[in-house]
Amino acid sequence: MIFDEELAGKAAENLKIIREKKPLIHNITNFVVMNYTANVLLAIGASPVMAHAQEEVEEMVSFAGALVLNIGTLAPDWIESMIKAGRKANVLKIPVILDPVGAGATTFRTESARRLINELSIKVIRGNASEVLSIARKEYGTKGVDSMHSVDDASDAALALAKELGITLVITGEIDLITDGERILRVHNGHQMMGRLTGTGCAATAIIGAFLSVDNDPVTASATALAYFGLAGEIGATTANGPGSFMTASLDALYNIDETILKGGAKIQS
Amino acid sequence: MIFDEELAGKAAENLKIIREKKPLIHNITNFVVMNYTANVLLAIGASPVMAHAQEEVEEMVSFAGALVLNIGTLAPDWIESMIKAGRKANVLKIPVILDPVGAGATTFRTESARRLINELSIKVIRGNASEVLSIARKEYGTKGVDSMHSVDDASDAALALAKELGITLVITGEIDLITDGERILRVHNGHQMMGRLTGTGCAATAIIGAFLSVDNDPVTASATALAYFGLAGEIGATTANGPGSFMTASLDALYNIDETILKGGAKIQS
Amino acid sequence: MIFDEELAGKAAENLKIIREKKPLIHNITNFVVMNYTANVLLAIGASPVMAHAQEEVEEMVSFAGALVLNIGTLAPDWIESMIKAGRKANVLKIPVILDPVGAGATTFRTESARRLINELSIKVIRGNASEVLSIARKEYGTKGVDSMHSVDDASDAALALAKELGITLVITGEIDLITDGERILRVHNGHQMMGRLTGTGCAATAIIGAFLSVDNDPVTASATALAYFGLAGEIGATTANGPGSFMTASLDALYNIDETILKGGAKIQS
Repeated sequence: MIFDEELAGKAAENLKIIREKKPLIHNITNFVVMNYTANVLLAIGASPVMAHAQEEVEEMVSFAGALVLNIGTLAPDWIESMIKAGRKANVLKIPVILDPVGAGATTFRTESARRLINELSIKVIRGNASEVLSIARKEYGTKGVDSMHSVDDASDAALALAKELGITLVITGEIDLITDGERILRVHNGHQMMGRLTGTGCAATAIIGAFLSVDNDPVTASATALAYFGLAGEIGATTANGPGSFMTASLDALYNIDETILKGGAKIQS
Repeated sequence: MIFDEELAGKAAENLKIIREKKPLIHNITNFVVMNYTANVLLAIGASPVMAHAQEEVEEMVSFAGALVLNIGTLAPDWIESMIKAGRKANVLKIPVILDPVGAGATTFRTESARRLINELSIKVIRGNASEVLSIARKEYGTKGVDSMHSVDDASDAALALAKELGITLVITGEIDLITDGERILRVHNGHQMMGRLTGTGCAATAIIGAFLSVDNDPVTASATALAYFGLAGEIGATTANGPGSFMTASLDALYNIDETILKGGAKIQS
Repeated sequence: MIFDEELAGKAAENLKIIREKKPLIHNITNFVVMNYTANVLLAIGASPVMAHAQEEVEEMVSFAGALVLNIGTLAPDWIESMIKAGRKANVLKIPVILDPVGAGATTFRTESARRLINELSIKVIRGNASEVLSIARKEYGTKGVDSMHSVDDASDAALALAKELGITLVITGEIDLITDGERILRVHNGHQMMGRLTGTGCAATAIIGAFLSVDNDPVTASATALAYFGLAGEIGATTANGPGSFMTASLDALYNIDETILKGGAKIQS
């Protein structure tokens, strides 16, 4: 397969700008991944902040390059904070990205994800196929959402849903799918060990947030971010003996990948 | 000392089933250990989920193979969530395991642990000697709870308390003690470095939860889980230079231990 | 530069006493760093506990050698818990240390930090220059707080503010500054990689807490704690390939540094 060289170059360029600008990425995220997400954002060269109190989220987000919302350990008052921060971000034209962790699994998560989408202007939604497609109020395609385990099963539904919502959808899996309802990109980077480490999906979302802060096009920002994160996973896996050493090695790889390595290793299919 | 070969085989069998079934383990646990617990459960082959909102715990637990309750960073609304999730688990015959972190240290923790035990049907309680025995409303034996630093000091009291409560009690220490009031098993696996890493006790509880989801006998489920986790600690310690590399190496070991290694290395005394 | 040999000896002595006494350090801290902070405290030989419920903080802190307050992921009810725990600590003469994470960035954090300082008797405040100096209600020096990126820019302001508040101020950076308004110590240990790992500042605060529990002089306790933590960073960096392996190696170093190594490696300038 031949990958898109221009997009590989774009990945390198985005990474360069992040390392120069060190954008503040404001995360309202879940308890499980806060530490790992902060370390991932520091490793790539961004500046993470976690803040969830309604008393400060509007002020905090006003300094940010992107706002990352993640419903992984959701509670009602956190949703209110997400709405408040998201509205302020919308006014200030700061990109908002949503990770609908567990949407489709419980009514509370599905409805909370839908409420965020209704009340906020969201640039990108990233999740697995079940999570992303559970956002749709009607069924896409002939199969139910739960059977869409692969990105290929989900691609037609994702295209239609992205068009309807006007939001770039990112479905990660063995091959990642990115679509805004018109364009489709696929990212072939990554390693199966990423599924054995908690928070890799959430970290992917946060990295997309950082890339959105320097790249206005949500489709290229998402694809280049995922190529970078997936490449770090590939490199980390070459020395790892299991998920513990994989976490260590992939964080090191995120830090050590430079523009040349990323340009040479990004596998984005246009 | 000669260890029980049948139970070593049972450990290997339980691990095999977990890796085939990938049971969802629902954790309502403390903030300190959420990330580590999730990584441990992924390393052994289970599927972790952390969810604490009263709006969703009943729905979430209905998909689970076991419910793990841990009071390590307790607050009143979390107790209500634990009660709600536990009641649903009881109705659905999903095993519930309790880690009474810090019971005996503060009145709030002791009373909260007792309330969970009174209002729920709990299969297994795991803690250190002070934590587990603090649950008793009367004193067992002639020595006070605080002086029971070793498992041996605690074994008579644990036997009596397990019988009274009708709950399998697991007291972990240099040698682990498991009793349902009739049988007593002891596990000799483990390494002192586990005491220098936060969350190893909580992770042991979560692994017991995973084993309970595939083994109906709480005594053998607990003993085989602890043999597996302790063996991973032993293997991890062989290459570790301190607690940082021990965390990495023991997570790798949990992932790499197969049925043959576990059958050969489990040290369960019946 | 010649460093203070007596203070290097004091560092070794403080570490020795911590390892003998294993003081309980009560942390009311942020979600991002709870796991890492607990592991750091275990690695140095102390006993960490995280407890934030108003129902138990007074009882818990009464067992503690120090109380560490950190406003990194603040919410109003957590401030109330900090006040409650802090008042009890004050009554019991248990040292209280404050990490005003993000003070100066949002009004909520700045005002919360000031409220804690007003309502509690605090021994030490540790942060970066912006955080620590944002506590002042008037401006110190001719430059604004935001421009004080280096410790040298901040030293005059810190000296004046420490004197006014009667609190030892610790400003960490490439060179750390410690002052009680009379004395000034500087610590030259550390490594730039510490800035690429989340929670190193918060961990420094927790280690100062542990040192305060065995050293009544907040100036020497803070300086010796920072020399130790910085030395662990230097040693960790010699084998690290990036922030992932740096976290592992610096935790190992904290555990492995003995009195001789610390006495030889502490770079405290008096």
